[in-house]
Amino acid sequence: MTTVGHLATPALVVHGATLDHNLAAMAAALPGSRCRPHVKAHKTTALARRQQAHGHRNFTCATPLEVVGMARAGLGEDLLLANEVVEPSRLRAIAQLDARITIAVDSPATITAAADAGLHECMVDVNVGLPRCGCAPEDAGALAEQARSRELEVRGVMGYEGHVVGLPDRAERVRQTEECMALLVRAHGAVGGPVVSAGGTGTFDINRVATEIQAGSYALMDSAYGELDLPFRRALSVLATVVSTNRRDGYAVADCGLKALGMDHGNPTIDGATVWFCSDEHVTFSCDGMLPKVGDRIQVWPAHVDPTIAYHEHLHVVDDDQVVEVWPVDLRGW
Amino acid sequence: MTTVGHLATPALVVHGATLDHNLAAMAAALPGSRCRPHVKAHKTTALARRQQAHGHRNFTCATPLEVVGMARAGLGEDLLLANEVVEPSRLRAIAQLDARITIAVDSPATITAAADAGLHECMVDVNVGLPRCGCAPEDAGALAEQARSRELEVRGVMGYEGHVVGLPDRAERVRQTEECMALLVRAHGAVGGPVVSAGGTGTFDINRVATEIQAGSYALMDSAYGELDLPFRRALSVLATVVSTNRRDGYAVADCGLKALGMDHGNPTIDGATVWFCSDEHVTFSCDGMLPKVGDRIQVWPAHVDPTIAYHEHLHVVDDDQVVEVWPVDLRGW
Repeated sequence: MTTVGHLATPALVVHGATLDHNLAAMAAALPGSRCRPHVKAHKTTALARRQQAHGHRNFTCATPLEVVGMARAGLGEDLLLANEVVEPSRLRAIAQLDARITIAVDSPATITAAADAGLHECMVDVNVGLPRCGCAPEDAGALAEQARSRELEVRGVMGYEGHVVGLPDRAERVRQTEECMALLVRAHGAVGGPVVSAGGTGTFDINRVATEIQAGSYALMDSAYGELDLPFRRALSVLATVVSTNRRDGYAVADCGLKALGMDHGNPTIDGATVWFCSDEHVTFSCDGMLPKVGDRIQVWPAHVDPTIAYHEHLHVVDDDQVVEVWPVDLRGW
Repeated sequence: MTTVGHLATPALVVHGATLDHNLAAMAAALPGSRCRPHVKAHKTTALARRQQAHGHRNFTCATPLEVVGMARAGLGEDLLLANEVVEPSRLRAIAQLDARITIAVDSPATITAAADAGLHECMVDVNVGLPRCGCAPEDAGALAEQARSRELEVRGVMGYEGHVVGLPDRAERVRQTEECMALLVRAHGAVGGPVVSAGGTGTFDINRVATEIQAGSYALMDSAYGELDLPFRRALSVLATVVSTNRRDGYAVADCGLKALGMDHGNPTIDGATVWFCSDEHVTFSCDGMLPKVGDRIQVWPAHVDPTIAYHEHLHVVDDDQVVEVWPVDLRGW
């Protein structure tokens, strides 16, 4: 293994002790099946295996490829594809896996596609306020009936309060989560089944209705989630090399740009510095103290972890200055 | 080959006739060595080969990996790495290629790194106003001297007016380009050498100082560049499948999200529709007319082409409904 100083940049760095802290904190709060970690956040079976070692054996996926990769890695004990998919070839591919697969359905078309592909289990995805997938709560019962008529086992309902998980004020998060879950409970009454799957990192200890929480970001965190009052810490940064400095105008440039960072939540942050802007291969920043020198390494903290990791091939797990493991981001793509 | 209707989504689609129009328009305006196409925009050697067929034999790269890939694809006649790199292993890797490599330098450290790695040619990168890489114009001569003392051939100067290329008002683009190029001309006077490399798609016919224009986006374009008065047309979209609809609230959801789109220039666009927001795997949108049905295909036009392509593995070249070629995005990474 190598040291951090010898990594080619830009490189994703996972701070191993912080990751372990986050995984342990979640396992203590929501042990075993109470948490169904979402692999979309990290797209890495080695990290999922670490989550499994903390007692979480059921996982959430966002794409068929994530399901395939998790099953092939031996992590297919109970996989929820928490997303609507209608593509026959991809659905058949996951139906043929040696794994327990449950798929989200929210319409007659998605039920037909799942049944035609030979899938056996589903959850009815209910819209609880986020304008995205999910049926109207009042339609959930009829969809469950349709699914059962196609010989799909209906395990229950799922509903993601994605518009609530990032609210900075905890009391407001509590209030709105209750509103969302009231809708989900109503739908669950009509659907039946043992599972109510919901929640995310921002509501992991707020959502008391869900039988399982679909949290993903808690493992690695990001600066957007880092602003909330959560017991999880930022464990992922992008290691970058300073490639140019301008002492007259007081800025430096490092090799971590738009192709190394998810930008939908805005600019990344750099400790002790102000980020001016990112371009394809660069971040330009000024410093509170002395500017770094060309060749110096810096840590860039992404604003949003999921689309950041999706650009990269590897996670480098570090312990102080040592790279102790290199994990392939093996669930990239769809 | 398959039809567009059978592609698994999200999938990058290159509209072949439009691409050909764009390449021909650039080749007519700036034939041969007058344009040094920037491969960072598409990261695809098959597309570079198409540019070469239009007479452009010299290329610009942003990362060492792009240089390696271009050289291995037989496109290494004259490659400019228009970026500062100090990593010894990556510099040695490109120095050993059977290709003509020129590297940008803007500091003593970058000159030392290039010379130590065994590179033979450089251009002095001059800051012409964009707060990114490039030396102060008044330092260019001394850097050229230092490079020559390390037995680097100095081919000339480069300077990118990146803060000007996207200005919507053409007269303002003309005026500011002149200001930038006055700085570059002054530096060139002190540096010498036959090459003045500058410009981009937004100034391709405005910058009359550069001996070669480093345009990249013109080939595929995007909605940001599409707002300017340029003779190039949008040739790249992301094909997506509608996976959910909500007729009560009047929106639909398709499977093209933050991991399929560069988001730094904001939301993508959909013809005849209003994009509400993107999340990791979804775009939510309303329509001017009827909502589409689950399973329908739509075209999503990215706001910024470069970081969009960097998420994907393939470009699918289409002619009407037929996929006529599939090009690997083989220059991904660093």
